[in-house]
Amino acid sequence: MKAIVLFSGGLDSTTVLTIAKESGFEVYALSFDYGQRHKTELESAKKIAKQVGVAEHKIAKIDLRIFGGSALTADIPVPTAPSDSIPITYVPARNTIFLSYALAYAEVVGAFDIFVGVNAVDYSGYPDCRPEFINAFERLANLATAVGVEGKGDFKIHAPLMKMGKKEIIEEGIKLGVNYSETHSCYDPITKDEKIYSCGKCDSCQLRLAGFSAANVKDPIAYN
Amino acid sequence: MKAIVLFSGGLDSTTVLTIAKESGFEVYALSFDYGQRHKTELESAKKIAKQVGVAEHKIAKIDLRIFGGSALTADIPVPTAPSDSIPITYVPARNTIFLSYALAYAEVVGAFDIFVGVNAVDYSGYPDCRPEFINAFERLANLATAVGVEGKGDFKIHAPLMKMGKKEIIEEGIKLGVNYSETHSCYDPITKDEKIYSCGKCDSCQLRLAGFSAANVKDPIAYN
Repeated sequence: MKAIVLFSGGLDSTTVLTIAKESGFEVYALSFDYGQRHKTELESAKKIAKQVGVAEHKIAKIDLRIFGGSALTADIPVPTAPSDSIPITYVPARNTIFLSYALAYAEVVGAFDIFVGVNAVDYSGYPDCRPEFINAFERLANLATAVGVEGKGDFKIHAPLMKMGKKEIIEEGIKLGVNYSETHSCYDPITKDEKIYSCGKCDSCQLRLAGFSAANVKDPIAYN
Repeated sequence: MKAIVLFSGGLDSTTVLTIAKESGFEVYALSFDYGQRHKTELESAKKIAKQVGVAEHKIAKIDLRIFGGSALTADIPVPTAPSDSIPITYVPARNTIFLSYALAYAEVVGAFDIFVGVNAVDYSGYPDCRPEFINAFERLANLATAVGVEGKGDFKIHAPLMKMGKKEIIEEGIKLGVNYSETHSCYDPITKDEKIYSCGKCDSCQLRLAGFSAANVKDPIAYN
């Protein structure tokens, strides 16, 4: 059975990639080139996909910047303190766009399973990281596609990390043998001599470091 | 009130653009550059948007070809005879992807109305042109976005052409003063001296010509 995995090369999606693979799926990984400031992130994603062993790894070029509106895509500083409401790093409709591409890819390769690393614990402020959103997309997928309508199969959106904290995600990954040394989570990394250094200060780095610390595992990546 | 209009520059979406404008919306038009064989189509779209009078016209670059799978995006010949089942010109998840971008754009500019020219009469074979699909996307939109979740408004997906045949679409357009001379519908046009000539033979041209004929109006575009 084939599965599409939305895969950024980050800690969460690398864990998901491994979960899909270990569940017996033939994995088709999908990454996005959305003009990341650091191309080395995509290089890391390629390495990880090869290590885990995927059937195919596609990188779709998309341009989220034309709409502006987020610290991750526009020229807005990345915050270093957590926010109570919807964070400035929220990219409008990002997971809707990512899942739409995954759905197109699924229909082309004949997959009915789509894995995504969304998480409602650490990202409670992001509307498109909640179970209600995932369920609504699953319903849409079966109405949006030729194979769904013809009843050739039922799309299922898997979000295995949905209810896990960072500690549990890391523990699950370690159990499955995930090598976290190429994974990056930082919103604001720097690159020196083709090596990525995470900032250690942004929300995402803080979450990651707290997770490794709680799991009592050393984070193998380099911090600035 | 602001509205996003998915706008290709074709007959249907030009009619929809005009309907949105005439309904009193401040229109934000969104087109896609998906590697059309004929860049002149996007130039025509720009001209039409200016003629109709939009607040903004964005062109998002997307790469649907990486997935292959359709006569419109892969190297598969465009058919000239209608098909009973799902047509080969069907692009997997295309309207899901297009509406996802429209949703991102809507959230950024503060619009809650999205207009799309889908049509269940002439495109009954396309799953993502049916009312069930549009309703499911509308539901998703309100779960996927910060503004939807915060209850700042309700997204509405307008598909004013849904139940109209080509004749009725053209009649409605003529009534609203649409100038169809820059609109193109052809799946397989040729360009000579920067002028587009439609093939007159593909499904889309046949539908268009039959519509103008039934509406008793001369189609103002050039055919090869």
